[in-house]
Amino acid sequence: MSDTLEKQLARGGQFLVKETQSEDVFTPEDFSEEQQMMRDSVKEFIDREIWPNKDRFEKKDYALTEESMRKAGELGFLGVAVPEEYGGLGMGFVSTMLVCDYISGATGSFSTAFGAHTGIGTMPITLYGTEEQKHKYVPKLASGEWFGAYCLTEPGAGSDANSGKTKAVLSEDGTHYKITGQKMWISNAGFCSVFIVFARIGDDKNITGFIVDNDPSNGISLGEEEHKLGIRASSTRQVFFNDTKVPVENMLSERGNGFKIAMNALNVGRIKLAAACLDAQRRTISNSVKYANERVQFNTPIANFGAIRAKLAEMAANCYAGESAAYRAAKNIEDRINARVANGESHQDAELKGVEEFAIECSILKVAVSEDIQNCADEGIQIFGGMGFSEDTPMESAWRDARIARIYEGTNEINRMLSVGMLVKKAMKGHVDLLGPAMKVAEELMGIPSFDTPDYSELFAEEKEIVGKLKKAFLMVAGSAVQKYGPALDEHQQLLMAASDILIEIYMAESVILRTEKLAKSKGADAVKEQIAMAQLYLYHAVDLVNTKGKEGIASFSEGDEQRMMLMGLRRFTKYNNMPNVVALRETIAAKIVAENNYPF
Amino acid sequence: MSDTLEKQLARGGQFLVKETQSEDVFTPEDFSEEQQMMRDSVKEFIDREIWPNKDRFEKKDYALTEESMRKAGELGFLGVAVPEEYGGLGMGFVSTMLVCDYISGATGSFSTAFGAHTGIGTMPITLYGTEEQKHKYVPKLASGEWFGAYCLTEPGAGSDANSGKTKAVLSEDGTHYKITGQKMWISNAGFCSVFIVFARIGDDKNITGFIVDNDPSNGISLGEEEHKLGIRASSTRQVFFNDTKVPVENMLSERGNGFKIAMNALNVGRIKLAAACLDAQRRTISNSVKYANERVQFNTPIANFGAIRAKLAEMAANCYAGESAAYRAAKNIEDRINARVANGESHQDAELKGVEEFAIECSILKVAVSEDIQNCADEGIQIFGGMGFSEDTPMESAWRDARIARIYEGTNEINRMLSVGMLVKKAMKGHVDLLGPAMKVAEELMGIPSFDTPDYSELFAEEKEIVGKLKKAFLMVAGSAVQKYGPALDEHQQLLMAASDILIEIYMAESVILRTEKLAKSKGADAVKEQIAMAQLYLYHAVDLVNTKGKEGIASFSEGDEQRMMLMGLRRFTKYNNMPNVVALRETIAAKIVAENNYPF
Repeated sequence: MSDTLEKQLARGGQFLVKETQSEDVFTPEDFSEEQQMMRDSVKEFIDREIWPNKDRFEKKDYALTEESMRKAGELGFLGVAVPEEYGGLGMGFVSTMLVCDYISGATGSFSTAFGAHTGIGTMPITLYGTEEQKHKYVPKLASGEWFGAYCLTEPGAGSDANSGKTKAVLSEDGTHYKITGQKMWISNAGFCSVFIVFARIGDDKNITGFIVDNDPSNGISLGEEEHKLGIRASSTRQVFFNDTKVPVENMLSERGNGFKIAMNALNVGRIKLAAACLDAQRRTISNSVKYANERVQFNTPIANFGAIRAKLAEMAANCYAGESAAYRAAKNIEDRINARVANGESHQDAELKGVEEFAIECSILKVAVSEDIQNCADEGIQIFGGMGFSEDTPMESAWRDARIARIYEGTNEINRMLSVGMLVKKAMKGHVDLLGPAMKVAEELMGIPSFDTPDYSELFAEEKEIVGKLKKAFLMVAGSAVQKYGPALDEHQQLLMAASDILIEIYMAESVILRTEKLAKSKGADAVKEQIAMAQLYLYHAVDLVNTKGKEGIASFSEGDEQRMMLMGLRRFTKYNNMPNVVALRETIAAKIVAENNYPF
Repeated sequence: MSDTLEKQLARGGQFLVKETQSEDVFTPEDFSEEQQMMRDSVKEFIDREIWPNKDRFEKKDYALTEESMRKAGELGFLGVAVPEEYGGLGMGFVSTMLVCDYISGATGSFSTAFGAHTGIGTMPITLYGTEEQKHKYVPKLASGEWFGAYCLTEPGAGSDANSGKTKAVLSEDGTHYKITGQKMWISNAGFCSVFIVFARIGDDKNITGFIVDNDPSNGISLGEEEHKLGIRASSTRQVFFNDTKVPVENMLSERGNGFKIAMNALNVGRIKLAAACLDAQRRTISNSVKYANERVQFNTPIANFGAIRAKLAEMAANCYAGESAAYRAAKNIEDRINARVANGESHQDAELKGVEEFAIECSILKVAVSEDIQNCADEGIQIFGGMGFSEDTPMESAWRDARIARIYEGTNEINRMLSVGMLVKKAMKGHVDLLGPAMKVAEELMGIPSFDTPDYSELFAEEKEIVGKLKKAFLMVAGSAVQKYGPALDEHQQLLMAASDILIEIYMAESVILRTEKLAKSKGADAVKEQIAMAQLYLYHAVDLVNTKGKEGIASFSEGDEQRMMLMGLRRFTKYNNMPNVVALRETIAAKIVAENNYPF
């Protein structure tokens, strides 16, 4: 890509050192008419086909999952991300996210089946396949005639995905590989036609990807359905390959490229998984407020109690922040893909590079939003009280289903470490200048702080100043850590986790503020006072967390004067001039939710 | 009780304004030989009878629950708290807690069945029954020949327990009441012989308690077993009474006394429930570290990774703090019961008053420890990764089972509000002097802080100073809130919740420090460096939470100079002179756990 173009586009990780303008972020309020129609049609599908069958999904009706997937295929939902030439809708990245988002309003089982098929089950072929491979497989995967499953994990290879023991041995005549090995936690295994299988050829350092037709007569057998905490109707089985013959032309990309394919598939998977935790939150909030408005205790609907209202407000603020950040990143990725395509690159290359550029944001979103849905469902149970513990209400399954999102597509621990690790690598490569800004912060720490009374008359003036200061806090902590430990920083996982928590909060808080600023500019601040309150509430918690994690990091690698200076810096960087009244903010938000009897944002 | 005696004994809620000495707290290290034997025999029972059958419990084998309860009865476990004259062991409150604690190592189902029977199913009769009632029912309940169930909750009466619609109508001849109504969430309903039923006579303001024999021919019928998120083999059914005849002599205590009985039964139930979340944590930690030591990724057991070690350390510190606080309060209650009995009161009255005195601590413990077991199981899943999501490992059931502890015996929201509400009432009654200390804090805020360099050479010198400062923070926030809102404080639930969080952290942090100080005095600080690290780690988080919740409270009811002064006070009260290195603390704790392959404290 040309340097000029490069400069116009947002870069991954750059949010940390560059001030983003609200007019430059895409928000859910910016959905095109086509996107709104797609959203409504997915919602309608969920309301008609999935939600009424929730009980059957909970009873492990795997056939229903398959049947519903076929229906989703008939409606085109499985081909949203697939280019038109391969039978898809070719709708772009934001639309792809939007479908993942609203599909998730149903059950975790269906959402997982959908994500596993359209994401890791199909994408490796669209992104790395040859023309022949794409023409043979993708149209049928996009239509729902076939389903895909992704065979990476093994009993001994989970987070350490490149350590798998599955072998691929070239036949003597050179026409095919024989694959032998055991894969586990394979979503959709029970009804898929195609496996994406990763195996090692010889003593290769890296694994290799293959497209394997599901043919039981070819040495492929399945384990029993796993019994899981949640996503009960998602088919999850072990897959055993025993001298399974795979034609050489079914190798995906090149020999030894499998780990790269796997990681890139996960990058896309992560941001889509974040989207797939959004409508699940909206429905949980809406169900919770409906119950709270109906349930009378002490002669009043419990929705009138501050303790309940505070929960509703926090649930909504997190969901709203998740939406803000997810669609902001999605559009950044889409813009980058489009620019690369316009620049003459193939769609394949463009999409790969586009997503890879924002791998940091993908990890951030995966962690943040998967934790939000867990907390949301958890508070939902608490609002329902005893009824929340019963299978007769949708809270307990929401809570169980949410639990997997913090584990799959890389555990949240792995993704936390990746987010900071990738950022540091980007800085070393010169793709993002962290060193310059970090040195500036160090200089600022030595100087005398300004005692001017700042002008906060504009909306979010103080909040935006604080986001800027939080970035300085990150640069101070992470910069000093890199200086102190160099490449050995990797071994200091506690410190990486703390730095990552700070990084995550910065991206989420900035996103929710920018979205709301844009909204206020178009509708007027008075019309969006609840959204403003949500942005302020989110930031307040972010500031607290940055302070907590910052202290933890600083105290772990510094002492004496250096430590005192950094702690003082941290205090300065996490200081409000006007302490927000979060109790009042929550009340503002809750009043709207309770009145609308719904998540209304 | 005489004033002199009163002065010698700890009072409930007093921890907030009085410095407690480490030699005055009871700790798990102080168990008598008899108590240690009881603990070992319960552990042995769980290991032999319950844990190997975990699968059957998960498959809703209600008969196994009943059968296991009978075995527990044969071993005397059901009668630990029951006076000897009624067939029990009469072992005192600490021993009662200890049995609840180690029973919980099994499954939530068995622990719930045990707690529901020995606690709310039996205690109302031992505490409020007439001699006749006690002789008739208690020996059979203590031996496990009969089981008890507690019928308070109704579809429309949950947190608002006194609003039940179940009616009791006196027969014309005055010999019996006819009870009609619907009770729900009744633990042990499927196999109990006796119900404790709360019903309203006429238009009484308060409900009345009755002992009702379970006789299906007497208008008693049961709903189907409820299908629940967790505690799957705990029998939970609705109970319908339809003109059920109950002899007048089966009324419990006096007419209209039912709400008081119910609340007192819950006080005891709450602290026992806290105990019943302890061994569940120990087993979860032990199972987690065993897995982490076995599971190899990136060529090393994952127990070597900082992110995993940090989790183990946090899990252990919380569990250890829970133990510290639970047994501290238990012994305070036992001492008070014994003093009252020595003073000539009946055991019944003494126990009632003894527990009631510490109702604040009971609520604090219920909230804190039920949240600890949830977090512990949650991190346990994360350590197990994908396997944590499988029913083949004990993590997912631990997580599901833990969820109910935050709901029953009063939701954690209700208990949070109660803890502060009861404290304020105690202050108003003059039972605890909060006003004096609160005024002193207010004066201190106006004065100039000392800039002396304090002497922190003794173990926990700074930590104890900080606990004292956290108490000041509570007095400042709660004192100002009471001044501002008066009795209307009840309506400010968000503020009550914040104040309660502060209160809880103070009690827990002080308890863990006192226990460890006592331990260090007896064994030497070098021998207990992991315990010291756990106390310091717990306090560190407590300080952060007090700061967060304090700011929230202050900003909600003050502004201008008053707010600035309180925020400054809060900063002073939550300030470490030597910032602890929590990364190193966690590492110290984790090293021990990983080396012992167990929760070793």
